[in-house]
Parts: sequence; C-alpha cells; structure tokens
Amino acid sequence: MSRKEFRDLAEPVAAHDAIASLDLTPETETVPLRESRGRVLAERIDAEMDVPGFDRASMDGYAVRGRDTFGAGEASPVELELVGAVHAGAEPDVTVGEGEAAEISTGAVMPDGADAVVIVERTEERDESVLVRDAVAPGDSVMLAGADVAAGARALGPGTRLTPREIGLLSALGVDEVPVRGRPTVGIISTGDELVRPGDPLNSDAGQIYDVNSYTVATGVEEAGGEVRLYPHAGDDYDEMERLLLEAADECDLVLSSGSTSASAVDVIYRVIESRGELLLHGVAVKPGKPMLVGTLGEADDGHASAYVGLPGYPVSALTIFQTFVAPAIRRAAGVPEPRTATVEGTMAVRERYGEGRLRLMPVGLVEDADGETLVYPVDKGSGATTSLVEADGVVEVHPDTEYLAAGESVDVRLFSPDVRAPTLLGVGEDDPALSRLLDRLDAPRYLAVGSREGLRRLRDDVPDVAVVAGETGRDVDSVEIGGWTREWGLVVPADDPNDVSGLSDLVDRDLRFVNRDTNSGLRTTLSNALADLAAERETERHELVEAIDGFELTTKATESPARAVLRGKADVGLGLRATAESLGMGFVSVGTETVRVHANPNRTAKGSVEAFSALLESADDVFDTLAGYDSD
Amino acid sequence: MSRKEFRDLAEPVAAHDAIASLDLTPETETVPLRESRGRVLAERIDAEMDVPGFDRASMDGYAVRGRDTFGAGEASPVELELVGAVHAGAEPDVTVGEGEAAEISTGAVMPDGADAVVIVERTEERDESVLVRDAVAPGDSVMLAGADVAAGARALGPGTRLTPREIGLLSALGVDEVPVRGRPTVGIISTGDELVRPGDPLNSDAGQIYDVNSYTVATGVEEAGGEVRLYPHAGDDYDEMERLLLEAADECDLVLSSGSTSASAVDVIYRVIESRGELLLHGVAVKPGKPMLVGTLGEADDGHASAYVGLPGYPVSALTIFQTFVAPAIRRAAGVPEPRTATVEGTMAVRERYGEGRLRLMPVGLVEDADGETLVYPVDKGSGATTSLVEADGVVEVHPDTEYLAAGESVDVRLFSPDVRAPTLLGVGEDDPALSRLLDRLDAPRYLAVGSREGLRRLRDDVPDVAVVAGETGRDVDSVEIGGWTREWGLVVPADDPNDVSGLSDLVDRDLRFVNRDTNSGLRTTLSNALADLAAERETERHELVEAIDGFELTTKATESPARAVLRGKADVGLGLRATAESLGMGFVSVGTETVRVHANPNRTAKGSVEAFSALLESADDVFDTLAGYDSD
Repeated sequence: MSRKEFRDLAEPVAAHDAIASLDLTPETETVPLRESRGRVLAERIDAEMDVPGFDRASMDGYAVRGRDTFGAGEASPVELELVGAVHAGAEPDVTVGEGEAAEISTGAVMPDGADAVVIVERTEERDESVLVRDAVAPGDSVMLAGADVAAGARALGPGTRLTPREIGLLSALGVDEVPVRGRPTVGIISTGDELVRPGDPLNSDAGQIYDVNSYTVATGVEEAGGEVRLYPHAGDDYDEMERLLLEAADECDLVLSSGSTSASAVDVIYRVIESRGELLLHGVAVKPGKPMLVGTLGEADDGHASAYVGLPGYPVSALTIFQTFVAPAIRRAAGVPEPRTATVEGTMAVRERYGEGRLRLMPVGLVEDADGETLVYPVDKGSGATTSLVEADGVVEVHPDTEYLAAGESVDVRLFSPDVRAPTLLGVGEDDPALSRLLDRLDAPRYLAVGSREGLRRLRDDVPDVAVVAGETGRDVDSVEIGGWTREWGLVVPADDPNDVSGLSDLVDRDLRFVNRDTNSGLRTTLSNALADLAAERETERHELVEAIDGFELTTKATESPARAVLRGKADVGLGLRATAESLGMGFVSVGTETVRVHANPNRTAKGSVEAFSALLESADDVFDTLAGYDSD
Repeated sequence: MSRKEFRDLAEPVAAHDAIASLDLTPETETVPLRESRGRVLAERIDAEMDVPGFDRASMDGYAVRGRDTFGAGEASPVELELVGAVHAGAEPDVTVGEGEAAEISTGAVMPDGADAVVIVERTEERDESVLVRDAVAPGDSVMLAGADVAAGARALGPGTRLTPREIGLLSALGVDEVPVRGRPTVGIISTGDELVRPGDPLNSDAGQIYDVNSYTVATGVEEAGGEVRLYPHAGDDYDEMERLLLEAADECDLVLSSGSTSASAVDVIYRVIESRGELLLHGVAVKPGKPMLVGTLGEADDGHASAYVGLPGYPVSALTIFQTFVAPAIRRAAGVPEPRTATVEGTMAVRERYGEGRLRLMPVGLVEDADGETLVYPVDKGSGATTSLVEADGVVEVHPDTEYLAAGESVDVRLFSPDVRAPTLLGVGEDDPALSRLLDRLDAPRYLAVGSREGLRRLRDDVPDVAVVAGETGRDVDSVEIGGWTREWGLVVPADDPNDVSGLSDLVDRDLRFVNRDTNSGLRTTLSNALADLAAERETERHELVEAIDGFELTTKATESPARAVLRGKADVGLGLRATAESLGMGFVSVGTETVRVHANPNRTAKGSVEAFSALLESADDVFDTLAGYDSD
C-alpha cells in the first residue's frame, strides 16, 4: 500500500508564520447599530451633532434669568412672575423676560431669555408667580448644547469592541449603522467516505460514523469571530474533492478540512493543493498535528485565492490544532482580542513523563482542590476517543526538551473554549444509573465512569474529589465514606426469557452465550466472588467455572452494554442490574445485591461540592425509590 | 407642580430579593445542534448508541487473528495469506480465517474472523501474502464497539454550557437537536415624549434627544442571555402607556422601562403598575437608582403576569442598575453562569470622599500603571452625560458607612460588560484633530478631551499616562515630554468672509458676534495671550479689549464647536484652527501658531503604550502633512 509520508516536519513557529502569512482579512461591512454587539469598529466615529442638541434643563424647577435671583435666600425670597411652562420633548412657547420665570421639566429646552434653573425644592408656587429662595448663576442646572458631546469631537476609535456602553454612546449620536471589521468566512470541508452528518441515518455495518470535527471546528470558528460555511461531505475521489475545495476557496477567506483519519483522503487533498494552489508546509513537529497542511487554494490573480489549513482527524487533536494555530489567525482577521479567559494557571496534580523530542500539546483536565487552587492532570493518550473532548478542558504546551512535568509544577492551560470552566466536582468510579440521576442535581460535576478499581487507583493519586465503588474491591485507599446505596444485580435476559435461565449455574452448565463487564467494574468483581462461592459449593476451582462460561472474557464498558448486546441478539445472557433490565423492558434473574459507596478524597471533604454531594446523598431517597432493585441503605 | 416622592427607600438587598422573587424562567426549547453554541442543556443526555458502532481498526495495517502472529518478530516473520482489503466507510466483503490477513485502513470495520491489527510499519507486502514482523494480541490496534461511548451511558448533564467540545461529543452521538434552557424574553419600553430612536430625524428645537437606554440595556440583556423585544416609544399618556405595558407583559418574561428622566412618565408607569399589577418596591437606597421600581404586570392567574423593573433615566445610572440588579436575574433564568471577566480588582488611584449614608455604585475608569497593576479612578459625578458611558469601565460598590476611599485602597470593579477592557493608554488634555488621527493608530487608547489646563491638573494627580497640552499653560507639572507639533490658529469665518474680517482687532473694534472656547482649552489661553499683546500695543488693559468682544464668554467644548456655531449662523466669527476651517469648507483668518506638546507621566514612561505613542510621534509625519496649518516641529 502506498502512503504519503511526512518527513522534515516543520517547527511549530513555522506553522504560525505560514498561517500568519495568509491573508484572511475580510472587507469592512456596515451593520445596524442594534446588531453590532461584539463587533469591532473599522474606523473612527466622530460626533456629527451636538449632544444635547439644545440648552437643556438638568433639573425640574423654574427657568429664570440668573441675575434676577441675586440676593435671594431662604429668608429673602424673590418673587418672579410665572409666564408659562416648558416640558421635555416640546418646543418652548414662552420667553422669559426680566422678573419672569417659566416652569421647566428635566430634559426640556431652556426658553429664550432664561439662562439658569432654580430647582423646584427651593421654590414655592403662588397663583401667578413663584417665590425663589435660592440665588442661581447663569448656567446653573443647565446642560449647554454640546456639553456632553460636541459636534466634530472624536467619539470612538477604530478597533473598539462594541459593548452596551459604546452602543449607548452611538445611540446618543443618532448613529444607526456602524462600519465594522468583517468576519472572515471560513469554509469547512469534511473528508472521508465514512463520515455522516449528525441527524442523518448511520450504517454501522458499513463502518460509518458521525462527523465530529465539522461541528466542533465550526463552533470554534464562531467563537473566534469567523463566519462558517459547511460544505457537503467530500469523499476520497480526486475530481469531486478538487471541485469542492475550489468552490470553497472561491467563497471563503479560509478553508479548513477536517474529519478523516484516512491516509487516502489526506493524500487526495495534498495533490489538489499542489496542483491548484500553493503548499506552504506539510507536517508540523507537534504532537498531535503531524499531518497538518498549510497552503493556499485557487488563483491569487483573479482574486479567488483562499487560505487553506488541514487539521488532524482525531477530534481532540483537531480542536487542539485549531485552537493553537488557526483561531488566533481568525481573531486577528476579525480584529477580536484573545479572550482573557482563554488561559488558566494551575499546578500538575501528578507527574507526567514525556521526552519525545517534539512539542506536545497535552490535553488536560482541571479540578480544584479544597483551597480553590487549580490542579491539572493529563487526559487523552491519543486514543482518538470523542469522550476525551469533554474529559479534557484544554491543553498544556510541553516543550520538546522536557523529560517530565513534576507533580506540583506550575503550568498554563489554554482552554478549549473561553467558556470552558473547571468542573465543580470531579468523580470517578463505577457506572450506575442512580448515580447518573444524582449527578443531575449537582452543579457542573464531571464524572468519569472508569470503574470501581480504576476509580480507587485514581483516588489514591489524589486527583479526583470522590470515587464511587461498587461491591468488594479488596483495595485499601485512604478515604472518607460520605454515603451510598445498594443495588440488585444478576443476569439480564430477553423479555420472555426464552432460555429459561434460573441462575449462575445455567451459565456454567448450559450452552448460553454470555456478555460480561470489564475488569475495572465492581459488578464484574461481585460476579467473580459469586462464582467463587459457587465453586466452593461444588468443591472445585473458580477458574474451572469461568472457563465453562462462553463469553466470560467478552467484556463491555458500561452498565447497560451487556443487556443491549442481548437485546441485539449478540448474546443470550448479560451481566447487569435489575434497574437496567426494567428500563430496557427485559427479563431479569436476580443473583444478589451489592453495595455502592461514595468515597471522598480525605483532602477535599471541606470542598463545597463534596459537601453538597454528601448532603444530596442523605436527601435523595426519591432517586432510589424510583429505580427497581435500589435501596438507600 | 405635583411630583411622586419616594420615601422609605428600600435596602439594596430587598431589591435583589424582590427581583429574585419574580419568575423569569422561560420554557425549555429545542434547538438544532449546529445553533446551540453558548446554550445550556435543559436535561441530561445519555448516549443512545455505541461509539464507535462497530469494532474499528485504529491504525492502518492488516487485520489478522492475533494467535496467528504469536512468535513473530523482526527476525522471524510470519507469512499470512492476503485475502482482501477493507476501507473506511465500506462494509467488509472478506472474512479472515486461520493463517489469513486483510489490508485495513484506520477507521474501517474489522472483518469477521480478525481480532487484531498489525500496523503497516511492521509488515512487508508480497504478491499475495504479507510478512508480519510483530506479534499482536487480540484487541491490539482495535477500538471495540462502544469503547468510546457505550449506549446508555451518561453523556452530558443538565446545566452544561455548550462549547465546541460538547457539540463535538453530541455530534459523535448523532444528536442533531438539543433540549436547552429557554432565553427569557425581555421587553424594553422606552418612555418620555422627548426620545427619538437612532436613525430617525431629530428636532432639537423641540427638545428631542436620541434614546440611549433602549439599545444600551437591550445589548446588556443579550449579553446576560436574554432575548430582547423593543417596543415603540411610549409617551406620557396613561392609556397608551397602560396598553403598551400590558402588551409587553403578555409577550415577555420581564418588562424593563427606561429612558425618561421626566417625573410625569415615571408617575404614569407607577400608576399603571399599581392598578394593573403589583408594586413590590419603589425607591432603593442606592446612588444612583432611587427611582427604581420593581413589580409585576398583568394577571397572574391567566398566565399573562410578567416581572417589571423600572430603571433610572441617566444612561450610566440605567446601565449600572441593570448590571447590578437585573442582569444576574436574567442569567439565573437562562442558566448562564456569571462571566469570570465580569469583575476586576484594582487600587484607588486617588482619594474619594463619600458619606451620603446610602450604597453608592460609583462609576470608575481603569488605567494600568507601568507594572501592569490596575488603578481605579471615579468618573461620573451624576451629570447624566452619555460620554460617561465610555469614560467609565464599571462600578465600585461603596458601602453606606464609608466616609472615603483612600488612594491605594483595594477595590473590586464590576465591569459594564464582560467584554470591557481597560484602555492600554489613558490620555487627557487638548482636543486636536491631528491627535485624533494619531490615536487611531494606537491600540485601544482612551482620550479625555478635558483641555490643556485640566489635563495637566490630572497628570499632577498621577492618574493618566499622558497629557496633551496646547500653547503656554503657566503650570509646572513634573512630566517627560515625548513629542509634539505646531498648529496654526486664528478666526474661522463663513466661506466667503462676508464681514471681511482681517484679524483680532476687528473683534474688538467692530460689531461682530464671536464664539470662544472654554477656559480649560489651551487655544483659549493662546487667544488671551494674543489679546494681551494687542492691549500692550494699544497701551491699554486686556480686560478692556475682552469686554469689547461680543461673545467672548460664549464658550464651547470642542475644537470644531465655534466654527460650527458660525456655520449655523449663530455667530460671525469663531476661535479655531486652519485645519478645522479647511475641513468644514470655511474661511480662515490666521493669527498665529501654537505648540502642542505630549507630556508623559514620569512614572509611566516604561509602559508599552507610552513607548508606542512616543515612537508614533516620531514617525507620523504623514498625519501632520495632510492637515492644513500643521507642522511636525
């Protein structure tokens, strides 16, 4: 098989430079003021009018000639003849002469002749006159025309981001359209014959999967201030790919391709860029991102050239490379500053070895300790799992020469989005339907269903806040138990139990296809213990029974997975819970009950979210009541 | 005149409680995944399918039976018969038997019979066979169905904010519509007969002004996660106001009124609420915000009741009260957390006295010192100026018992928007057209055109980074001059100079209406000095000449203001610059030139933005070249 090999990987700085050399800057556009929030002014705006446009009373009271009030005081009021009234929004129909006054409201036009306002609190109205108990100077309680903003004055400069207050100032100036920096148009082409857009039907037997990167990257583009065009899926056919890439280049400032991990699709794009554009670099010395492509597409001279960046296929890798190399370029083109929340500082919770000799963009998760300090732990090991997307909060740049990051070392984390926040609670351990409902009632928890054994191991490393453990684990980890429940477990069978299964013995003695859970699962350990009891009863060894069970090593990851395998006809019997059998409308053969215990990290018991979880465990009987086979202890 | 008086002001906490007691929560809605960025999940989403949906090759290579490779190594390859190939997105048309292998691409479905992949780098393809140089165990380089996400597993919990990564995970699950928290609908009614919406024609003679608060508050509502409905302007008529308020209550979760400072409009709303809703509180012991109203509108029992909050009329006050009391309630209803950038910490740059016995929400500006520390200075003195909107960055809560804030005291500033940033450069001083163009080339400067004298005074207080000073000021302030220019000044007259003005003498000797600048302006001082020279020439006193000038005390705020007064026919002659006369197409009588100097704060010369300004002054000759009467020194 022939494959495009990337040799002579470019340095990351060269990738930044290559992308910076591309022109993504769109044309300036004009938008209605009302829709300008978050946009960036393209040019200076000077006031074209005075604000206010007239001499304006700034208090309720009486418009007078200041000199008529000289000498007035509490004990020596001056009486002025009342000649009329002026209200806000009305043209004065009165002139104030010597010895005269006109009632005036805040915001009203000062009538001719008057040059000051006596506030109402210092006056007393008589029949056709007003007593003034205060001397005012010309200009008192009057805002002169242009005193707020003068015509011709600089109002806002180019590059100003429009927030409520700037929009307020522009409103005052009567501006209803503003010239703003355009948003770069970014085309997203998703490649790979196997990709299907969310919402369309999926044929798993033909190896189809949903396209993850198109929407992920599209959302990242919008966050960075770009406008997205999604193009239909391109297969791996050269002509079709060429047509699509050139169409996108024609319509966009930047074209991103993303999605396929298949070498052939990458190879096809590579050939199109080489023949219909310019390849600036292929392959960057960064993990992940080796297969990154940077270039231009289309003919520069007839104005159709567009920038092009090819992202890696794994979702976390695609988002990482996008946020590291592409998002800054989109922000620059849009004139949008880097969000202040894009980066957080934390300390490594564990030691992490490296030493691969190229820059690593290491996906990490965040958790706060009891003092609110941010701890950072590595998440994705390059598995390509989409779950890593939500298990990692951002990336740490690890220098090529770094051999390891020590626990306690300070690191900067660039978040996957400025809106990403560290979870309030980090839990690990057993997958359990009651737990899932309990988590719904906590504020922004993260729970990694890694199984009871792996959960306890992580708790020992002091990373999570709590570990949820089912059954007997045989491990001794320092922790504080904050609550728990019991659940009924056994064998999940089809609804009508066609094989008439009655217990574990049937698995051993009969020819039934079984589906088990993985070895980290507490439920699996409980099953093993029950088989040990059965072996003792039969005066044999457990491994003899295990070997007699067809499918004992056929393991699955989640609580419902064995039952769903039975539902699909892939097996006759699955290990599972009564609650699962009931929710899927299946048959259930009870074997026993097991405990589920919530173990808090002893250093985090004072953390607010752990206290909240602890309180919830004491008050959430309704959760256990509604699930079959559950008991709140 | 009768006015609604607010007695027994409520405590601020009571205002928070009253607003919290209102139900703003909208219904859950379903949105397309592609449009769900920033939304908040209304309910838990469990995986409805396995991801991947099939056993998937995770590397390019050959699908084999693991046990067939046992014992294989670099020196002892195993030869397997090549029976076909499987590509990503295609259904396998081959079965792998004992001693057989099939070529396979990353992402392709594992063919029946095979349980592991040998990566291509450890193989060598022959004619119809492949040499395998590595032993693989069952499962190697294979991602089992459901290994990423298992059907039935918890994917995302309620309350999760959707950022690129969550949208990626939901894509992987094939979810194309998501249940999200609704956005509360907020109706904005702008009251006051004098208000005109931006874009509509304005009649200043009738005291009309543009409506500032509607768009300001609308933008704030959107930032907080609400959806806005703007209602047409309501006048002060009771029936019309009642109709409009009830219509808005019917259509919205919350109705805000804002805009008018007029007592009669507030009074009308007060009466409508009392008769057609429930008044929870009126008047809060907070400065600003005394006239705040909180209540409900419409009938609760037929489902049309809506919350109501009345905001003060001054723009800075309206935005302050909105951000303090209303935005948190909108965020709660939308399920959106408070932005982390909503608050910054700083130290008071100056001492500020208070002691009014009620909570003060003090508008402040921000500036960074040379070390990047944030300094905070008070801005608005309750003048109602819209310019305060962009001169202040946020508010500091000053406790009722506080007598003063000391310079150097640490304070928290709640920004007017999470997108607000402190300016990089804070300049104060003379208004000048060349300066305005220079500022366009700096990154996010703030310039307060307070005049040369006031600018120097503020520089002495160590608040701004630079002061720009025109002419001779007679003040001695410690500063570092970083550059400057000269400008030609004189008398601006109509284009055809109908009065045949030839110089200052004409102002004194003839019956011409003059418009001056204010006393803070350096240009005004330069004029005064020129008049002193003329007086000396005539062997008289300057005040004699000044008194002979009709309009010498008629002062205006900005460079162009006198010229524009002449343009409008309000005067015959205005004090101004040759550049202004030229840009407005007017006549000009030259009197002299004056220097303009940029004085840097001696403690800020190392600040990046000051260095950038200094460099700009040396390189921006083109700015001076294009302005009439300007010289770069």
